[in-house]
Amino acid sequence: MSTPLSPLPRDHAPADRQRWAVKIEYDGTGLVGWQKQENGLSVQALLESAAARLAGGRPVPSITAGRTDARVHATGQVAHLDFPADLPLNTRAVRDGLSYHLKSHPVVVLDAASVDPSWNARFSAIRRRYRYRLLNRPSRPGIEANRVWHVRFPLDVQAMRVAAELLLGHHDFSTFRASACQARSPMRTLDRLDIKRDGELIVFDVEARSFLHHQVRNLVGTLQLVGCGRWQPEQIRVALEAKDRRAGGPTAPSEGLYLVGVDYEPDPFR
Amino acid sequence: MSTPLSPLPRDHAPADRQRWAVKIEYDGTGLVGWQKQENGLSVQALLESAAARLAGGRPVPSITAGRTDARVHATGQVAHLDFPADLPLNTRAVRDGLSYHLKSHPVVVLDAASVDPSWNARFSAIRRRYRYRLLNRPSRPGIEANRVWHVRFPLDVQAMRVAAELLLGHHDFSTFRASACQARSPMRTLDRLDIKRDGELIVFDVEARSFLHHQVRNLVGTLQLVGCGRWQPEQIRVALEAKDRRAGGPTAPSEGLYLVGVDYEPDPFR
Repeated sequence: MSTPLSPLPRDHAPADRQRWAVKIEYDGTGLVGWQKQENGLSVQALLESAAARLAGGRPVPSITAGRTDARVHATGQVAHLDFPADLPLNTRAVRDGLSYHLKSHPVVVLDAASVDPSWNARFSAIRRRYRYRLLNRPSRPGIEANRVWHVRFPLDVQAMRVAAELLLGHHDFSTFRASACQARSPMRTLDRLDIKRDGELIVFDVEARSFLHHQVRNLVGTLQLVGCGRWQPEQIRVALEAKDRRAGGPTAPSEGLYLVGVDYEPDPFR
Repeated sequence: MSTPLSPLPRDHAPADRQRWAVKIEYDGTGLVGWQKQENGLSVQALLESAAARLAGGRPVPSITAGRTDARVHATGQVAHLDFPADLPLNTRAVRDGLSYHLKSHPVVVLDAASVDPSWNARFSAIRRRYRYRLLNRPSRPGIEANRVWHVRFPLDVQAMRVAAELLLGHHDFSTFRASACQARSPMRTLDRLDIKRDGELIVFDVEARSFLHHQVRNLVGTLQLVGCGRWQPEQIRVALEAKDRRAGGPTAPSEGLYLVGVDYEPDPFR
């Protein structure tokens, strides 16, 4: 009898491929999001098309750490790309070569690193870090149009902080989960939800190992109800315990959201 | 004999006019600058056209504190507008009415204030504050395209600070003055030139009562020669003392420049 093969990690790179991790920044305004779609430009399609040009036309599949929605931005998105094994590549060639072929789009590769075939941008990630930027002033954004959520009435940051405290830790986040969410479990551990005012901006810094679909935007949209005084901070606990999307507040718009970083141990880019 | 009239301040509002000060933010990317021109959209033309709509089609002339160049941005530009005296106006109507008529453009009126006919956005200003933003990293800007000057090689902020010190105070700034500059004197007093690093950004904060044409961009372009090591900091003094544009460095690109504020005593917006 033959010895059964030990199971490979999910989505291990095939033997004829070399796997590269890339760190990406993009302005999501004119894009349909990360994932390839029929109806518009996606980050994935742009990245894979740039990679195929480096690979002499051969396809180069990618997997991302976070499938951002349409109009969501990133300053530290991470993906991996499986290039043909015979291609002579180095860090600079991957970073600058991809960025060169992306140059007519607001997408840029900040860094690149050769990784083990078992390394996976999605499954190896130990933390995702998002930032949500809200412009809190009477006038609409001029310079920051499409890069912030504009809220006219003054928000109480201290009240939102009190409410945010109640969301930290391990919970069933069904109240803050999009109906289209494909995750098997609604349980997540929220490690950080800091809120600070920076002039007319209110900045939310949110961290967890992983998030449910629309979780950050639903958290921010609900906290904004606390900020404008329609909810008492304690109402957040009631909403969370309802485990029902209808108990939560609205989904904050995508243009305020930024994927700012994905953490790995060890960091492939160090 | 009739008593001679005491001279009016320069550009006093006529008796059939009410003068309003406005504070304006704009993304200069698609604009030809402040001043009305044949060949493209200017902030002045957009603002005056919005004002004319509030005035039932009657022309509303404007004067600005700083005639920014094409692609230069502003977060705190100030201008005054002379509306017909018979128009019923209040702060909110001016601010929100102008912003409403500007809504298809990246120009927004942040504040408005009724001012005395002798108040003048240009001549009453006691200080202009500019910020210059430089992205210092290998990769081109993704999210900040058109909003920063991108410099790939690492700059030495400390060396630039040493050089900047030499520029403070009252000097003949001919070395940093555009040939097209229409000011009668090249003498200016530079009150502030602070340089700080903020992650991948280098931010220059520059203040003076008034500036020569291209002065901030020429100062930054020359300091960048110090930052990259081509010039020793002391060479800035030699350049300044030459009083000759050819002794200075290049003009930094307009997209990194922001007019962040104009000061008046008293502040009409308080």
